[in-house]
Amino acid sequence: MAYINENYLKLPGSYLFREIAHRIAVYKEKHPTANIISLGIGDVTQPLPSACIEAMHKAVDEMAAMKTFHGYGPEQGYDFLIEKIIDSNFAGLGIEPDEIFISDGAKSDCGNIQEIFSENAKIAIADPVYPVYLDTNVMAGRTGTLQEDGYFSGVVYLPCTAENNFIPRLPQEHVDIIYLCSPNNPTGTAMTREALKKWVAYARENESIILFDAAYQAFITENDIPHSIFEIEGAKDVAIEFRSFSKTAGFTGTRCGYIVLPKSVKGFTSNGEKKSFNPLWNRRHTTKYNGTSYIVQRGAEAIFTPEGKKQTADTIAYYLENAHIIREGISSIGLTAYGGINAPYIWLKVPDGFSSWEFFDKLLIETNIVGTPGAGFGPCGEGYFRLTAFGQREDTERAITRLKENLCL
Amino acid sequence: MAYINENYLKLPGSYLFREIAHRIAVYKEKHPTANIISLGIGDVTQPLPSACIEAMHKAVDEMAAMKTFHGYGPEQGYDFLIEKIIDSNFAGLGIEPDEIFISDGAKSDCGNIQEIFSENAKIAIADPVYPVYLDTNVMAGRTGTLQEDGYFSGVVYLPCTAENNFIPRLPQEHVDIIYLCSPNNPTGTAMTREALKKWVAYARENESIILFDAAYQAFITENDIPHSIFEIEGAKDVAIEFRSFSKTAGFTGTRCGYIVLPKSVKGFTSNGEKKSFNPLWNRRHTTKYNGTSYIVQRGAEAIFTPEGKKQTADTIAYYLENAHIIREGISSIGLTAYGGINAPYIWLKVPDGFSSWEFFDKLLIETNIVGTPGAGFGPCGEGYFRLTAFGQREDTERAITRLKENLCL
Repeated sequence: MAYINENYLKLPGSYLFREIAHRIAVYKEKHPTANIISLGIGDVTQPLPSACIEAMHKAVDEMAAMKTFHGYGPEQGYDFLIEKIIDSNFAGLGIEPDEIFISDGAKSDCGNIQEIFSENAKIAIADPVYPVYLDTNVMAGRTGTLQEDGYFSGVVYLPCTAENNFIPRLPQEHVDIIYLCSPNNPTGTAMTREALKKWVAYARENESIILFDAAYQAFITENDIPHSIFEIEGAKDVAIEFRSFSKTAGFTGTRCGYIVLPKSVKGFTSNGEKKSFNPLWNRRHTTKYNGTSYIVQRGAEAIFTPEGKKQTADTIAYYLENAHIIREGISSIGLTAYGGINAPYIWLKVPDGFSSWEFFDKLLIETNIVGTPGAGFGPCGEGYFRLTAFGQREDTERAITRLKENLCL
Repeated sequence: MAYINENYLKLPGSYLFREIAHRIAVYKEKHPTANIISLGIGDVTQPLPSACIEAMHKAVDEMAAMKTFHGYGPEQGYDFLIEKIIDSNFAGLGIEPDEIFISDGAKSDCGNIQEIFSENAKIAIADPVYPVYLDTNVMAGRTGTLQEDGYFSGVVYLPCTAENNFIPRLPQEHVDIIYLCSPNNPTGTAMTREALKKWVAYARENESIILFDAAYQAFITENDIPHSIFEIEGAKDVAIEFRSFSKTAGFTGTRCGYIVLPKSVKGFTSNGEKKSFNPLWNRRHTTKYNGTSYIVQRGAEAIFTPEGKKQTADTIAYYLENAHIIREGISSIGLTAYGGINAPYIWLKVPDGFSSWEFFDKLLIETNIVGTPGAGFGPCGEGYFRLTAFGQREDTERAITRLKENLCL
């Protein structure tokens, strides 16, 4: 008899965006002419940089002729892309080509990385949090069950609220794996160099591993926010970093990202021997993955050309201006807004007396604007609400006008 | 302290293709002018169908403009592709759109599928075998350790040799998960309808699940070989099928495949409840994967246009003619060749007195042809040798001429 992996049954339904879609549908049925502006889902809207478009056309043409055709590539990614990544994003940090693994995106990498750790590893995650970190550990049996308070037993949650500037405090108990996301989804805030130093020190002292999700690093505007955890001394022994071209260059539908896994990052065997995680990940990646599409890797490479760099910088500046407009707009109506300076997300404090879902309904009904209730990202997200800066300028501006004119506070 | 997943340490190095490369390099150093023809690695050489090229150019252009840009798509794949797959490959078999999951290739799917099964599931694999089935179960802790005889403890091996026409016999003991690959890599043979019926009956009787790898189905030429396991009555309750565009349409470097997982396929919870595997896989796929590149899915869709169908059929006919040339050539020099009729692989019996690695060396030295020693695919592969039909015609013909003229038998 084939038995199922019962850990999957511990997961609640992936309720958040389905519930949002449901509430929108109900509203639309009653108000068929309503012009709804979504500042809800974290997907980009601007087209790909023309440098990437040109590179992919060229790559497609290569696939059309025997002499230039590309079959299986290296599972870890092509050198042409890995070299550009190191030169542009990790210059001077001593990252070597065999410490980069190209993938189809950070979601896959963040989800799969836990496989190379012991099934008994104790994990720590921020609250609120991007759900993939937790869900993949639930599936792997590294947690207990979901409690009535909304927390899984066996997991260390690190509350991130306005009270601690959304920077997780070091845990009181020992943890083995720490998921950090900076700049953060959903709070839109980022960890300073000083804050990150404390975490690296903790990890070194406790022989823990930091899984550092830097998918939004391209949005950093302030000097004291590190783009890579490897800018912090000592991090190369205790951290694995996730990068993505999704938000950097509009690759959400094109799919490319990568892991940076220094060979100096080590874990223990049960008899106390130290082993590098890099060959384990290499084995995982080459056994369960067959490389990212050649065409897509050529597109990603073009991000690092002078034109590609300028075009992606322009698009990011465009989204950051949206973030600025939203942030200012929120503040101007007397609400408190966080984030939006080093990230494309604004995390606002919902008015007193409202839950985050109640505020969702209020915003939808009064302004026809859709956002994401903070409670959907974890218990500490209750009382907050996420707006994204990935919309088009005109929609963003109209949304803020509506907020000012129609939201009853 | 972060502990590693020690199951990874049970795996021997991925030795086969590295050792082949090493032996070639050593030979080339001594014979720098040698013209080596590789019939070793199972990668395609013909360019993509022009229908796919056109479709991907169009998709790339769509990504260049805001109105036609595609961000996140459905993780399960776009309907435009899923519908074509059902219409062309599963017409009349009652497969529904939510039973197809588009991926970046069959290697990922074959590797990841085991996650939705209990960690205690007993697996059965053919011997010789495509290594991903076994390796991913070793990593997941579903096996014991590698024994001196080359077998992992805790795994049921199903010998496939000339004695049983390379069709695995039903196991004597109960197994939960059965990996079947037909047409087979590496043996190039295929399971008849009758043979497959017995396996479906076994699975139904034992409440086991068959993981059916049909990556090579496009090469089937004989009528009594099913293209899909779902052609067998009752299979929809006990089988999951893997498909790939890699060998069908030259997508080894473009990356696209899919799983067919009928909702009627069920496993048990520990308290005896029956649960469908489909929602578990849906949860896995949507949590750990963010969809296949839009551009690639448009390329795959074009395979199902009349031009795409004709072009892929032409390419497959080209490879099958290579297979015919190799098979005839092998036979003409007095060796026994299997496969090559419903598959792009020829599995030859090495001459008496040679191990498969010794024959590798003999072939390299005497004819400058590279193949793959059968022992690399499992203990029962010893005594056999794989040649692939994916080369160019001229190389294939030259290789056979050399075999006839230079191989000392």
